[in-house]
Amino acid sequence: MIEVEYDGTNYSGWQIQTNARTVQEQITKAIKLVLKEDVKMNASGRTDAGVHAKGQTANFFLEGSIPTNRIANAINSFLDTDITILNAREVPMNFHARYSAESKKYLYRIYNSPTRSSLHRNYSYHVTHKLNLAHMELASKQLIGTHDFRAFMSNKSSVTNTVRTIYSINFDKSNNNISVSFHGNGFLYNMVRIIIGTLVQIGSGKRPIDDLKRILESKDRRNAGHTAAPQGLFLEKVYYPLDTRGTMYYN
Amino acid sequence: MIEVEYDGTNYSGWQIQTNARTVQEQITKAIKLVLKEDVKMNASGRTDAGVHAKGQTANFFLEGSIPTNRIANAINSFLDTDITILNAREVPMNFHARYSAESKKYLYRIYNSPTRSSLHRNYSYHVTHKLNLAHMELASKQLIGTHDFRAFMSNKSSVTNTVRTIYSINFDKSNNNISVSFHGNGFLYNMVRIIIGTLVQIGSGKRPIDDLKRILESKDRRNAGHTAAPQGLFLEKVYYPLDTRGTMYYN
Repeated sequence: MIEVEYDGTNYSGWQIQTNARTVQEQITKAIKLVLKEDVKMNASGRTDAGVHAKGQTANFFLEGSIPTNRIANAINSFLDTDITILNAREVPMNFHARYSAESKKYLYRIYNSPTRSSLHRNYSYHVTHKLNLAHMELASKQLIGTHDFRAFMSNKSSVTNTVRTIYSINFDKSNNNISVSFHGNGFLYNMVRIIIGTLVQIGSGKRPIDDLKRILESKDRRNAGHTAAPQGLFLEKVYYPLDTRGTMYYN
Repeated sequence: MIEVEYDGTNYSGWQIQTNARTVQEQITKAIKLVLKEDVKMNASGRTDAGVHAKGQTANFFLEGSIPTNRIANAINSFLDTDITILNAREVPMNFHARYSAESKKYLYRIYNSPTRSSLHRNYSYHVTHKLNLAHMELASKQLIGTHDFRAFMSNKSSVTNTVRTIYSINFDKSNNNISVSFHGNGFLYNMVRIIIGTLVQIGSGKRPIDDLKRILESKDRRNAGHTAAPQGLFLEKVYYPLDTRGTMYYN
C-alpha cells in the first residue's frame, strides 16, 4: 500500500481516463518506468479534478523484489513534484485500499474575504460575503452520527447504500481562512462539498440553522445547497484497522 | 498606493526586465488596459523569482479621475488570479513606497521532512535533515538589534549603508512546517534568505550556535551560509508612519 500526497491543481482528478492527465495515470506510468511492471491500482476512492490529497491510499501487486522501503523514492524520482509517494508498506493479498478502510478524514478550506487571494486561490473556496461561523458550527451538529446522507450525494453516483456515520466536524478560523475537518466512516460522492455548500448558505443567512435535519430527512439532493468548489477539498487521511498494539492490522 | 498579494511561482520576480514575465510588468500592463495610462511604479523593494508577497506596496501617479475605491477591482479584472491588488489609497505627492517605509515584515517557511511535499513545494524550502529548532531560535537572538548586516547581503548588491535594525525574529512550528517571521526597519538584498541558510546550518549542527556574532563582525559574505530557496520567502507587510490616531500618516 502507498500513501500519496498531491496538489490536484493540474490534474483531472485521481482516476485514469482517456484524454485526461490524472494522478493514478502518472503513478502507474512512473511504476512502469522504474519497476518495469504494469500494475492495477485500487485507491481508497476517487478525487475530482482540482481536489488535493495529503494522504490518499492505494494498493497494487508487484512481482519484483524491490525492498518495500525503497519503493517511495524510486517512484518519486519518476513523478512530477506535485505528486509524492509518502511511504509504502506491504499488505496481505486480501487488503483493498477502499474496502479495508475503516474511516477517512477530509479537510475543507474556505477563504472568506471580499477580495480574492492569489496565494490561496488553488487551495480554498473563495466566499466573498461575511460568514457567520457560529451558525455554521451549530448547524453542523445535526450531521454528527449515523444518517442516510442521500440528499448530500451527487446524482451522478449510483451507490445504493447511502447511510454513513460522521464522527466529528471541527471548525477552525485564522484571519480569513476557515478550515472545516470531517471524520467519518465513509463519504458519498461529493458529500463533503455539498455539505459545505449548504453550510455556507446557512452562514450567509440564506437558510435557517436547523435546515440540515429537514434536508437529511427529505433524502432529495435538490433540497441541499450547491457543490462547493473542488480546490478547497483535501483528502487528509485514510484509516485502517489497528491491532491491539496500536499498529495497523494490515502490516 | 496599492497593496499587492502575489504567488511568485510563475514570475521572474517583481521588477520589470526584458524577456521575462514579472509582477510589475503585469500590473503596469493591466493599468494601461483598464485606465489607458502609462504609469511609472515605485515599489517598497524588489522580490526575486519565486518569492511571494502578501502585502507588497507600490505607488504611481494617475492623471484620470477613477475613484480610489474602484482602482483595485478595476486592475484585478485585467490580472491573472496569481496577482491581486488588495486595496488602493491616495498618498501625497512626496510619498515613495520604498523611501517612506518605516519597517517591513517577512515570513520564511521551511518544510522539514525526509520526504518532499507536493502541497508545500512552491511555498517552502525543503530541508531533509532534522533541524534543532531550539538551537536556531537561540542563535537568532544575536541578530536582534542594530548591526552592520554586510555579511548577510548578496554580493550583487551595491548598497553602501548596510546597517539595519531587526526588531524581532519569531519561530513557529506545526507538524513539519517551520515558520520564521522577521520584523525590521529594512532588509538588504537576500538578507532574510542568507540568514535562513545560516540558521539551517546551525540547526543541522554544522555551525556553532554563537556563529552569527562572528559572521556579523566579519562583514564578509563568505562567512555566512548559503542563500535559502526563494519559494520559502513571503513579503508580509510594509509599514508606514502612523498619525496620532493610529491611521497611516500618508492618507
